[in-house]
Amino acid sequence: MTAPVRALVFDAYGTLFDPFAVKTRAEELFPGNGAALSQLWRAKQLEYSWLRTLMGRYENFWKITEDALVFSCRTLKLSCDEHQRNQLMQVYLTLPAFPEVKPALEKLSHLPLSILSNGTPEMLAPLIAANNMAHFFKNIFSVDALQMYKPRPEVYQHAAASLEVPKESIGFISSNYWDISGATSFGFQTFWLNRNSLVADELGVTPTATLQNLSVLPKFLKNPTAL
Amino acid sequence: MTAPVRALVFDAYGTLFDPFAVKTRAEELFPGNGAALSQLWRAKQLEYSWLRTLMGRYENFWKITEDALVFSCRTLKLSCDEHQRNQLMQVYLTLPAFPEVKPALEKLSHLPLSILSNGTPEMLAPLIAANNMAHFFKNIFSVDALQMYKPRPEVYQHAAASLEVPKESIGFISSNYWDISGATSFGFQTFWLNRNSLVADELGVTPTATLQNLSVLPKFLKNPTAL
Repeated sequence: MTAPVRALVFDAYGTLFDPFAVKTRAEELFPGNGAALSQLWRAKQLEYSWLRTLMGRYENFWKITEDALVFSCRTLKLSCDEHQRNQLMQVYLTLPAFPEVKPALEKLSHLPLSILSNGTPEMLAPLIAANNMAHFFKNIFSVDALQMYKPRPEVYQHAAASLEVPKESIGFISSNYWDISGATSFGFQTFWLNRNSLVADELGVTPTATLQNLSVLPKFLKNPTAL
Repeated sequence: MTAPVRALVFDAYGTLFDPFAVKTRAEELFPGNGAALSQLWRAKQLEYSWLRTLMGRYENFWKITEDALVFSCRTLKLSCDEHQRNQLMQVYLTLPAFPEVKPALEKLSHLPLSILSNGTPEMLAPLIAANNMAHFFKNIFSVDALQMYKPRPEVYQHAAASLEVPKESIGFISSNYWDISGATSFGFQTFWLNRNSLVADELGVTPTATLQNLSVLPKFLKNPTAL
């Protein structure tokens, strides 16, 4: 028997907010290269977060996001000047929420809702404000407080400790399977949002449930056997 | 002034031995998919090594290599049975050395040479034997002794401590820029083998030198200003 969920913690990028929205701007700036640039940029951003944590050389998410952009433009042989780089970086502050997110959060608002993100507080605040979503969240947790990135267990522990709810009663939601793996390994109940029918990574852990998108979560929490 | 190099430590996969040799076998088993499968397999193998280290869920390199293969086949919708999986895994035990490696090691053999690899001892021994290279190496260091993967500093420290040579007098050679970053961050002198003219990652560290392939290293060590 799993414990009832008493608090929910959401990943931000890719889960609540769509990072591939940068593709449009990238395509405007570099016609024909928008998809390649946005995909490589995202992959390198994550890779740098893992590698810097492993090396013990933390830099914040704004810095590594910009570093990943520089690398990606060089690799794709796109001459990206400072102005273009700033334009692309600014998109990160106004990424749109996925369409089902706000209606789902309304239905979940009887629980304390929080965000736990790799992003800095300075990146998350304007993003949440741009989407008019500040009223939904009790806490905005940033890994920047710990100077290490997901999926280090200390990061999930940081949220659990602040919420003062046992970790097995906290539901964690992410579209990133590696993040779900870290949260499951730590001891959260986990809900993998698999909007694009991706294959689960082979990391030795299994989420509590896999959901096609966030709109399914309110029903699931009411009646886990109904899915 | 940099200290004279008194010992050399080599990465194995991608540096001494060519992991993309699996492409040929993959192409035989899954015509038209050899390149995609070998590339995704390698990327996921590394990703799993980083994620498992961050999560504190170590499994050895044979296991995560097989896990990465399972994921990659599923993602590419290739039905890979156990026999085919075994055939692909066995290739890892007989990867060929890059053509310039043995002549270069001959010229470097006045120094103590070692390998420091993510691979298990059971993976490295047959690989080195298949290439008739055992006589070159004083030590074969595996991260398996520490149950954590590169680029954690403890891994490089493990080699340095066993060699009893100050880390600033140890030259570390890898074709993987993230590995070079970890070794540089730890304090080794580092030589990035950039056989394919890749772009350096933006990880805040710079190698001692970038070499087109291993044949350049003997000359460089004799006269660093000649390059």
